[in-house]
Amino acid sequence: MRRRHVLPLLWWLADSVTSMSEPMSPSVGLAVVHYFCKPSFEYDGEALVAAVKAAEGAGVTVITVAMLGHKADVAVMGVAADMRQLKALQTGIQHAGLDIVDSYVSLTEVSEYSKGMPEEMLNARLYPQLPPAGKNAWCFYPMSKRREHKDNWFTLEFDKRKVLMEEHGKSGRTFAGRIIQLVTGSTGLDDYEWGVTLFGVNPDDLKEVVYTMRYDEASAIYAEFGAFYMGMVTPVEELIHQI
Amino acid sequence: MRRRHVLPLLWWLADSVTSMSEPMSPSVGLAVVHYFCKPSFEYDGEALVAAVKAAEGAGVTVITVAMLGHKADVAVMGVAADMRQLKALQTGIQHAGLDIVDSYVSLTEVSEYSKGMPEEMLNARLYPQLPPAGKNAWCFYPMSKRREHKDNWFTLEFDKRKVLMEEHGKSGRTFAGRIIQLVTGSTGLDDYEWGVTLFGVNPDDLKEVVYTMRYDEASAIYAEFGAFYMGMVTPVEELIHQI
Amino acid sequence: MRRRHVLPLLWWLADSVTSMSEPMSPSVGLAVVHYFCKPSFEYDGEALVAAVKAAEGAGVTVITVAMLGHKADVAVMGVAADMRQLKALQTGIQHAGLDIVDSYVSLTEVSEYSKGMPEEMLNARLYPQLPPAGKNAWCFYPMSKRREHKDNWFTLEFDKRKVLMEEHGKSGRTFAGRIIQLVTGSTGLDDYEWGVTLFGVNPDDLKEVVYTMRYDEASAIYAEFGAFYMGMVTPVEELIHQI
Amino acid sequence: MRRRHVLPLLWWLADSVTSMSEPMSPSVGLAVVHYFCKPSFEYDGEALVAAVKAAEGAGVTVITVAMLGHKADVAVMGVAADMRQLKALQTGIQHAGLDIVDSYVSLTEVSEYSKGMPEEMLNARLYPQLPPAGKNAWCFYPMSKRREHKDNWFTLEFDKRKVLMEEHGKSGRTFAGRIIQLVTGSTGLDDYEWGVTLFGVNPDDLKEVVYTMRYDEASAIYAEFGAFYMGMVTPVEELIHQI
Amino acid sequence: MRRRHVLPLLWWLADSVTSMSEPMSPSVGLAVVHYFCKPSFEYDGEALVAAVKAAEGAGVTVITVAMLGHKADVAVMGVAADMRQLKALQTGIQHAGLDIVDSYVSLTEVSEYSKGMPEEMLNARLYPQLPPAGKNAWCFYPMSKRREHKDNWFTLEFDKRKVLMEEHGKSGRTFAGRIIQLVTGSTGLDDYEWGVTLFGVNPDDLKEVVYTMRYDEASAIYAEFGAFYMGMVTPVEELIHQI
Repeated sequence: MRRRHVLPLLWWLADSVTSMSEPMSPSVGLAVVHYFCKPSFEYDGEALVAAVKAAEGAGVTVITVAMLGHKADVAVMGVAADMRQLKALQTGIQHAGLDIVDSYVSLTEVSEYSKGMPEEMLNARLYPQLPPAGKNAWCFYPMSKRREHKDNWFTLEFDKRKVLMEEHGKSGRTFAGRIIQLVTGSTGLDDYEWGVTLFGVNPDDLKEVVYTMRYDEASAIYAEFGAFYMGMVTPVEELIHQI
Repeated sequence: MRRRHVLPLLWWLADSVTSMSEPMSPSVGLAVVHYFCKPSFEYDGEALVAAVKAAEGAGVTVITVAMLGHKADVAVMGVAADMRQLKALQTGIQHAGLDIVDSYVSLTEVSEYSKGMPEEMLNARLYPQLPPAGKNAWCFYPMSKRREHKDNWFTLEFDKRKVLMEEHGKSGRTFAGRIIQLVTGSTGLDDYEWGVTLFGVNPDDLKEVVYTMRYDEASAIYAEFGAFYMGMVTPVEELIHQI
Repeated sequence: MRRRHVLPLLWWLADSVTSMSEPMSPSVGLAVVHYFCKPSFEYDGEALVAAVKAAEGAGVTVITVAMLGHKADVAVMGVAADMRQLKALQTGIQHAGLDIVDSYVSLTEVSEYSKGMPEEMLNARLYPQLPPAGKNAWCFYPMSKRREHKDNWFTLEFDKRKVLMEEHGKSGRTFAGRIIQLVTGSTGLDDYEWGVTLFGVNPDDLKEVVYTMRYDEASAIYAEFGAFYMGMVTPVEELIHQI
Repeated sequence: MRRRHVLPLLWWLADSVTSMSEPMSPSVGLAVVHYFCKPSFEYDGEALVAAVKAAEGAGVTVITVAMLGHKADVAVMGVAADMRQLKALQTGIQHAGLDIVDSYVSLTEVSEYSKGMPEEMLNARLYPQLPPAGKNAWCFYPMSKRREHKDNWFTLEFDKRKVLMEEHGKSGRTFAGRIIQLVTGSTGLDDYEWGVTLFGVNPDDLKEVVYTMRYDEASAIYAEFGAFYMGMVTPVEELIHQI
Repeated sequence: MRRRHVLPLLWWLADSVTSMSEPMSPSVGLAVVHYFCKPSFEYDGEALVAAVKAAEGAGVTVITVAMLGHKADVAVMGVAADMRQLKALQTGIQHAGLDIVDSYVSLTEVSEYSKGMPEEMLNARLYPQLPPAGKNAWCFYPMSKRREHKDNWFTLEFDKRKVLMEEHGKSGRTFAGRIIQLVTGSTGLDDYEWGVTLFGVNPDDLKEVVYTMRYDEASAIYAEFGAFYMGMVTPVEELIHQI
C-alpha cells in the first residue's frame, strides 16, 4: 500500500543512500531474502528494473522469477553479505509498486553434519554462485524438523541424525546435474528452520526430487513443510512484460 | 489489484508475445493450473473471453466454470505443454479485471503404481481430452498422504501402498461413466501432493464418489484434504453474463 | 468488490435470464447454499429485496437472517432443485452490493443409517419445508467425522456407526418441538462433510441442544466442527433496515 | 466497509426503530456480544457515543475498552435480554465508522456443576452487574474443553468433571477481590464453548490468575484457548479521543 | 485505515493529553508492547518521529527496528510503567500513517524459577536498560509451553520444571556477551505465554542461539513457537528514510 507519490523511487534511492545505517552482516556466509510479490495499482516495471539494478550495483545477487498461481506473480531472491542492502532492495521493490505478500529470511550455512567437507564445498554452500545456467524451473519452500511425541528430531542423538541426513543427502545426489539445491538456515529469523530453493531444467525434475526424497526417513517422519512456490527464472527486463 | 489502465489487455497481449521467454515444459505430460477468481472493480467480460481465446490459440486447453459459494465466482483450468503459456493465461485473466484468489499448480502424471498400464491408458492420463462431454458438475480439491506417527504413508512398503491404491482404484471404478477423474501431481510445486479434478453429470455424483471412497483405507487412514471447490462447467461466453 | 455500475442489477437480471445455462440438479433432493454477507460501499437494500424476490420467482426457497457478530451481518440461505438458480441468487446478492465473505454448498440427503424410514420422513429430509414457523433463532455450522489414529470414524464398521448415530438421533429427539434440524451432505462439494442448520424458539435452545449432544459418543469422540454462525430469521424487507 | 453516507446514523437510528423485529431473548439470563473494532476512514467519535447511548437507552449494558495491540483499537461489550438490541448496537457501531474485526456471541449461564448455589449467586451469574468499580484492567478470551484421544473432557463422567471444576473454582477464588470473572456459554452460537471476561485492578492480576489456573488439571489437560484480548475499561467519551 | 485527516497528529496529541485516563500499571515491573507496522498511503515519517519523541517524553522507552520481509517494514517496541502511555504510542504510530499489522502485549517479570536471584539481577529483568549498545541484530517471537498428552509442561512437578529451566538457562548463558535476551510474560494478555526479544551483534548470533537451545529438553519437547520477526535496530530518524 506504500505509494510512490509519497517519495518517487529515484529520490528515495538518493535519499536512502545518504541515510544508510552501518552494515549488518553474518560473521560467515551471506544473508538471503526471498520476496514474493503482486503488482499494485502503481506497479511500474521500469522502476522494478531500476531497483534490481541498484541492488546489483550494491553487491546483491538478484534472481527474478515469473511465478505461477495466486500466491505471487513475481519472486525476487536477494543474496548479499549486508542485510541493510537487502532491506534497500525490499524498499526498492515496494517503491516500484509491488506489494510483498510473502517472504523468507535466512542465512547460507554449513550444517553441523557437513563440517568436515573440503573447503571448496563449504564455500559453495556459504557463497553460492547463482543462478545456475540453464536451470530455470524454480521452487522454494520452508521446512522444519518435527517435534511431536516420539517423532522428535531434536531429542534424537547427533549420531542418529547424522546417519539420517547422510542417507537423505545420498538420495538427493541421485538428482545431481538435474537439480541445484540451496538450503539456508532460518532458526530464530523466520517461521521455519530452513528454506529450500531448487533450480531444475524441467518442472517435473522439481516434482520428482521432492517426491522421491519424501520417502527418506529424515523427511517421511521428521519433516514439516510450509507453502510451496513454483515459477520460472526470467530476466527482469522480460519479466516486467509478463505481469 | 492489477489495473487494466496500467496496460490495456490488447496492448499487453501484443507486448507479451514479443517478450515471451523460451518455453518451460515437463519432459513428459502436461502442466495444469487451476485459477479461482473473483471479479474486481475493473472486471471486463469481453476481455476475459479474449484472454481465453488467446490461450486456446496458443495451444492451451481451457475449461471455464461458474462457481458456487464465496471462495470463487469463476474457475479457469488451463492445461498445456508450456508453462509460459499458462503464465500468459494467468496474466490475461488478471488484465481482464479478475482477481485470482486461489490456484493450484500441478503436472499430469502416471503414478508409480500404474506404470504397467497399456500405452493408451497412460496417454489418457498424461494427455487427457478435456472437458468430457455432458459432465458439467465439476469439483476440485488438493490432497496429500498423511505422515503422522503410525499413520504414515511414506514409511509403508511399496507393496502395501500398491495394494491400497489398487483397492482405492477399484472403488473409484464403480463410478465409471458417472465420473471422470483427473489426478495430477504437485509435490514440490504446490502445497499438497496431488490435485484431484472431478467431472460428473449431477452434483450428487461428485458427493457420492468422494463420500464412498473416504471409507477406503487409502483415504480413511492416509488422506489429508485441502479446500473443496464446486461449480458448473460453462462456456466462457455464457459465464461472463452470470457473474 | 463487484460494483453495480459494472452492470446495474435490473439489466443484469434481464441479461442473465437470456444467457442462463441448462439446469444442474441433483438426481434426488435439493441443492442448498448458505451465503454469509457484509455490505460494501455500494450496498443497496432495495436491490437485495429484488434479488431475493427474483430467486423466489424462479423456484428458490430463500431464508434471510440478521446475523450477530463480525463474521457476517446478513445470511441468505437458498434451497433449490437447480444449482444454476442458486448461482443466479449468488450473483444477485453481489450485484446488490453485498460481499459474500463465507458460504457453504451442500445437498439435502437421507443418510445411509436412515434408509428404512417411512417415505414421508424421507421426503421431509429431501424436500424440507422451510423456514419453520415461529423458530427464528438460527444457527449454522459445518462438521466432519474425525479420522485420527484410533478415533477414526471411517474405519468403524457400519453396524457400530449405525448404533452411534441412532444414539445421537435419540439424544437430538429430546429437543423435538424446540428445535428443527437440517443436516445436508457436502462431501466433495465443500470443506466439511455435512452442514447443520438449526432453527429454535430461543437462542438458549440452540446452545442447549448442541452442548447436550456434544456428550454423545458420536460427537464427543468423532465430530470436528467448523465455524458457528448465529442469527435471527428476519423478513428481507425488515432486514435491509437493520444493517 | 459500510459507509455512513449510505444512511447517516441518526436517520438509521430513527429508521431502525420503526423496522425493529420482535425481540429474541434467551429463556433465562442475558445475551452477550463482545465487539472488537478498528476505526475506518469514516470513523466518527461522536456517532460512536450516540450509538452507545442509544443502546443504553434501550436497556443494553455497554462496556467500552481501549485496546492494546493490533487486534483491535476499541472493544465494545454489550449485555442485554434482547438480541435484537445487540444487533442494533452492532449496526450503530458500524454506522459510526468502526469496522468490527472480531467478536464473540454468548449467553450468561449457570453451569451444570453450580446448579445448587444460593439464588443470589445464581442471579449474579445470570444477571451480572457490570462493570465492577475500580477494575479497569480487562481481558477476554474464548475457550473449549479438549476432545483428543485420552484427553477428552466429553467422555469423562459427570462426577469426575465436577471434581475438576470445583478444584478449578477453588483455585480461582484465591483471586477474589483482585479479579471479577464472567464465564458465558456459546456452544452452538460461536466457535468456542465459553467466553471468559476478566476485570482486574492491575494488568498483572490478569496475567497471574490465568497463569496460575493453567496448572489446574481442568486447564492443563482439558482447556483449549482462542485469541486473548487485553485493554483498559474507559468511558466512551474519553475513549473516542484516544484512538 | 485510520486517516490523518480525521484528526491531524498534533491536534490529536494535544487533544489526547487532556483526555488521558488515569494510569494503568502493573504492580511490579513494566508493560511492553511490540508493534509491527507497514506504511499506508498516508505514511508521514516526520509524524512517526514526533510520535516516538512524544512517547519518550512521557517516560516510554522506545526501540525502532528496520524489518526484513513481508511481515512488517518497521517494528516499534515500547516499554513503560503506564499502559495508557503505550496506548498513546500505538495511536501516535497509527496517526503517522502506519498500519499496525501485528503486535505483542506482555509484562516484564521474574519467573517462578528465579525468585531467589540477587536483587540487582531481579531488577535487570523487571526494569531492563534497553537497547543494549552495539547489538543491532534484533528478533522477536512469542512462545508457549506445550500441553499435549504426555508432553504436558503444566502437569510436570515444579521441581522437574525448575531443573529443565536451569538446564535451559545454562545453555543460554553460553551466549553471554553475544546475545541479550528479554523474556516477558503474557499469559492472559496475548495469545502465547511469553514473548522473547533477542539483541545480538550479528544475525547469525540470533540463529545460533535459537538453534542451539532448541535441543534443550525444555524446548525440544515442551516449546511451541509463534511467528519469528527479524530486523535491525535503527534510530527512528534514519529508519524513516529506509521505508
